[in-house]
Amino acid sequence: MQTRTDLALEQREQFPDLPDGVECEEFKKGSAAITKITVKNEQGAKAIKKPVGSYLTVEVPPFTDNLKSEELILTLAENLTELIPKNGSALVVGLGNREITPDALGPKTAGKILATRQIGAELRRVAGIEKIRSVSVLAPGVLGQTGIEVFDLLKALSTSVKPDFIIVIDALASRYLRRLGTTVQMSDSGITPGAGVGNARHEISKSTLGIPVIAVGVPTVVDAETLVFDLTDGKTNLNQPADREMIVTPREIDLLIDRASALLADAINRALYYNVEPELIAELLS
Amino acid sequence: MQTRTDLALEQREQFPDLPDGVECEEFKKGSAAITKITVKNEQGAKAIKKPVGSYLTVEVPPFTDNLKSEELILTLAENLTELIPKNGSALVVGLGNREITPDALGPKTAGKILATRQIGAELRRVAGIEKIRSVSVLAPGVLGQTGIEVFDLLKALSTSVKPDFIIVIDALASRYLRRLGTTVQMSDSGITPGAGVGNARHEISKSTLGIPVIAVGVPTVVDAETLVFDLTDGKTNLNQPADREMIVTPREIDLLIDRASALLADAINRALYYNVEPELIAELLS
Amino acid sequence: MQTRTDLALEQREQFPDLPDGVECEEFKKGSAAITKITVKNEQGAKAIKKPVGSYLTVEVPPFTDNLKSEELILTLAENLTELIPKNGSALVVGLGNREITPDALGPKTAGKILATRQIGAELRRVAGIEKIRSVSVLAPGVLGQTGIEVFDLLKALSTSVKPDFIIVIDALASRYLRRLGTTVQMSDSGITPGAGVGNARHEISKSTLGIPVIAVGVPTVVDAETLVFDLTDGKTNLNQPADREMIVTPREIDLLIDRASALLADAINRALYYNVEPELIAELLS
Amino acid sequence: MQTRTDLALEQREQFPDLPDGVECEEFKKGSAAITKITVKNEQGAKAIKKPVGSYLTVEVPPFTDNLKSEELILTLAENLTELIPKNGSALVVGLGNREITPDALGPKTAGKILATRQIGAELRRVAGIEKIRSVSVLAPGVLGQTGIEVFDLLKALSTSVKPDFIIVIDALASRYLRRLGTTVQMSDSGITPGAGVGNARHEISKSTLGIPVIAVGVPTVVDAETLVFDLTDGKTNLNQPADREMIVTPREIDLLIDRASALLADAINRALYYNVEPELIAELLS
Repeated sequence: MQTRTDLALEQREQFPDLPDGVECEEFKKGSAAITKITVKNEQGAKAIKKPVGSYLTVEVPPFTDNLKSEELILTLAENLTELIPKNGSALVVGLGNREITPDALGPKTAGKILATRQIGAELRRVAGIEKIRSVSVLAPGVLGQTGIEVFDLLKALSTSVKPDFIIVIDALASRYLRRLGTTVQMSDSGITPGAGVGNARHEISKSTLGIPVIAVGVPTVVDAETLVFDLTDGKTNLNQPADREMIVTPREIDLLIDRASALLADAINRALYYNVEPELIAELLS
Repeated sequence: MQTRTDLALEQREQFPDLPDGVECEEFKKGSAAITKITVKNEQGAKAIKKPVGSYLTVEVPPFTDNLKSEELILTLAENLTELIPKNGSALVVGLGNREITPDALGPKTAGKILATRQIGAELRRVAGIEKIRSVSVLAPGVLGQTGIEVFDLLKALSTSVKPDFIIVIDALASRYLRRLGTTVQMSDSGITPGAGVGNARHEISKSTLGIPVIAVGVPTVVDAETLVFDLTDGKTNLNQPADREMIVTPREIDLLIDRASALLADAINRALYYNVEPELIAELLS
Repeated sequence: MQTRTDLALEQREQFPDLPDGVECEEFKKGSAAITKITVKNEQGAKAIKKPVGSYLTVEVPPFTDNLKSEELILTLAENLTELIPKNGSALVVGLGNREITPDALGPKTAGKILATRQIGAELRRVAGIEKIRSVSVLAPGVLGQTGIEVFDLLKALSTSVKPDFIIVIDALASRYLRRLGTTVQMSDSGITPGAGVGNARHEISKSTLGIPVIAVGVPTVVDAETLVFDLTDGKTNLNQPADREMIVTPREIDLLIDRASALLADAINRALYYNVEPELIAELLS
Repeated sequence: MQTRTDLALEQREQFPDLPDGVECEEFKKGSAAITKITVKNEQGAKAIKKPVGSYLTVEVPPFTDNLKSEELILTLAENLTELIPKNGSALVVGLGNREITPDALGPKTAGKILATRQIGAELRRVAGIEKIRSVSVLAPGVLGQTGIEVFDLLKALSTSVKPDFIIVIDALASRYLRRLGTTVQMSDSGITPGAGVGNARHEISKSTLGIPVIAVGVPTVVDAETLVFDLTDGKTNLNQPADREMIVTPREIDLLIDRASALLADAINRALYYNVEPELIAELLS
């Protein structure tokens, strides 16, 4: 048993000193605290249990304060812009099960991303969006519902839709309650669905798909087992298999998912379509 | 700080010996374990922190096994039949917020209860339901959404709709993870919305409304604070106010609510309309 | 058979000359066309088949253009302000069945109205809302689901919650397709649920409840029968009972309901809480 | 302008005599009327405007009567069995937009189909489903949301997931109100998304994908324009572009979609997993 977390920041926090092969920068932007962790090599990757790559974490005061603020959206969009290619077509993928509230962050965010790949040249001209990149969007569901691994689907799409890069959105697990709904992690290292729950499947990353894969997520749960382990310094475990499936989450989990998905979608649309007015994007989405 | 539970059974479990003024019977029915706790007087009520009355608890193996089984529905309906008047009109009230998944048990169950108060004599004859009682159904929402205390609403309805008794359905908090979605509590002592969370409002009961109030519920969450307190023998608390709003629940909370509401509605419809075929009730509901 | 409409404007349009007892004013406000019809006496009421009272109709270009615009919200709020008392407590009631999309306008709008009746003096002071009126909100469901007539519920609440006036919100039927989702009717004459479909129940109005009842609605459907009757100059009817239950509506009915309910809620909140900043209301709602 | 229908049966009904290249058989099965239309060659295809192939139509009395009956599910499953290969793996695709109620039939049905492709040999043995075929399921969304043509997605999947055949489910348009929710069409000729609305995209069929494509659908709407055209013998048109987007549908469209999707899913699961007990499939789905 060990504590579970999907955040590079929390893996790094377990070390009093920075492990070899890992770099860390911290700065503030308005009310947001930003941490940039760089896993430089396999030694670093082994230490903090995350693949080589950059991990940007934006932490904000609890949701109700300012999560919809223009300032926060801009901060997220700016940080995301550092990770995604300036040009080229994108495929945005919302991972997770839309019918399980704490897992619905990916599908809900994807539903608010503007798809433009289908818009022909003439319509683009009329709409004043000639310059924007081509974006496609998918929320493929989870293996148990579909029988298809997301990796296989993306592999197939990478040769037909041929995006230049992929953005995957997923609900994350944090180690600490205070980060639920208040933290956004963005990385260029891709994602391995199920990795956090010991049920790892194919890695979705540049090394397996041949194109950059940027992962974006918000922690929506703490594993009950992790909470208990932590609060008892590892002296107590949840032993029943059913108990180990339990999660800790705010009672208003539905609200957290609604807000976090709106925030992520705003930031992603802003970063992808940086060269047109946000109002135009909002109008095309409605 | 103390552990939070809405179950009389769990209050009783805190005593090695049965407190004065409390009686307890246990028996089995098929795969279900049934406990009947009777709080006989104020001394007992003070000891186990539940009002005077009868509390029937039906515990079943975890949900996936047999929750839809005809046997379980019948067991619940039989136990409920002990608590509700044999004749007379009923008002069924689903408490809770339908937009917060762990709190939606009441409204979702109410949505599956057959209302018959509006059906006139001629239609009843044609439908073959002359003999059934008159039932009305309401899911009034929560104080924060409506500005109206459920007590005030029921008080007003008790003089206009004039039901002979009320059934209130609500999501409960349990102390133990294993009881989430696997336990049904039914009592004739009414309910005090918000009592469990230190935010008690008017009691909804026979003594305040003048007619019997039967409460039915299923635990859907354990308070995170209770879990931690328990697992650390009271040595550790969650100190942050935000943390203390956290709940522990199965990841598939949506599924738990769907199944538990279907089960409760089946049992309540069966108990209310005991004198017609269940198939006829199902047909009228569709 | 005759054409069905819930709009006073469309009843009035059937007369080449204004009938006795009916007055009509028309003006423009930005892109909105506003018609004010006043039914002055029973003679007028009989002619245009609407009770005595004032009917304000705001027509806008099709939804996608500017329905979210600040200008339109303000126009609606101003017109509504003419109909509701300047002071006193309000009860806002969303009529209709939330599970039937074309009928869900009332419950969806009610879900976005800020309830303040439950907020105590101290909290009001802290939140900076001492001056606002007290508002309660209810979406009681329909007779077939609840067994309770909305009139009976409101009658009971008028003696317990004791609002000074009531606002009822309901989806309307129009005679013409072009008005679906593009027209708002507000009146001080109350409402008779089911009146439009030949299934009239108790009138909800000042004369039956003793307090002003302001009705607000948006047409979401045209009866298929009305469309056919109109387009064939009354020569063709839909004869099958099932066919006569059919409605004509935009394919994107879900979107129409989402937008219209957001618009109405914005305007109603603005009119009710005219003496605080809209931003504060938005914050309290989130 | 012409009347719009997705039903081969209704195309055929326009001819007093059977056109060359088209065959038609009619029979009864319990309360269901079954019509089998075979388009034998291009001459027939041109006449009735449907590709070469077999079209089975099952018509039942209006929904409320017996749509959930075991008898009807069996009739549909039997007819479907005639169209799908006895062995081999299947990909089931739910077409349409899950957020537009009249268009949500495909995604809703797909959500109730059991996916088994991901279940390994050992688990199959334990679950007693060694013999069943491998099935995957997808609800890919519509072009406007995703920017990806369903054809391109299926083309890509046909080389990675490599199903032996595909079943596509879609909401259909009928010409007559009486067929809404009461008719099921199944064919082996595939489908062209958007064909009915003059917005045809790539055909999804055996000739384009190289594997059998079976299409299954239920009419959920009549185009308002078709209704008007028909009822006025072509003398009246809806001229406004917005009006031409209007549909005619039952007020209880949500209920129609719920019931029709449950029925189709039952029948498809029954046909795909014909060699295990339906109860076992139901259990695996829950």
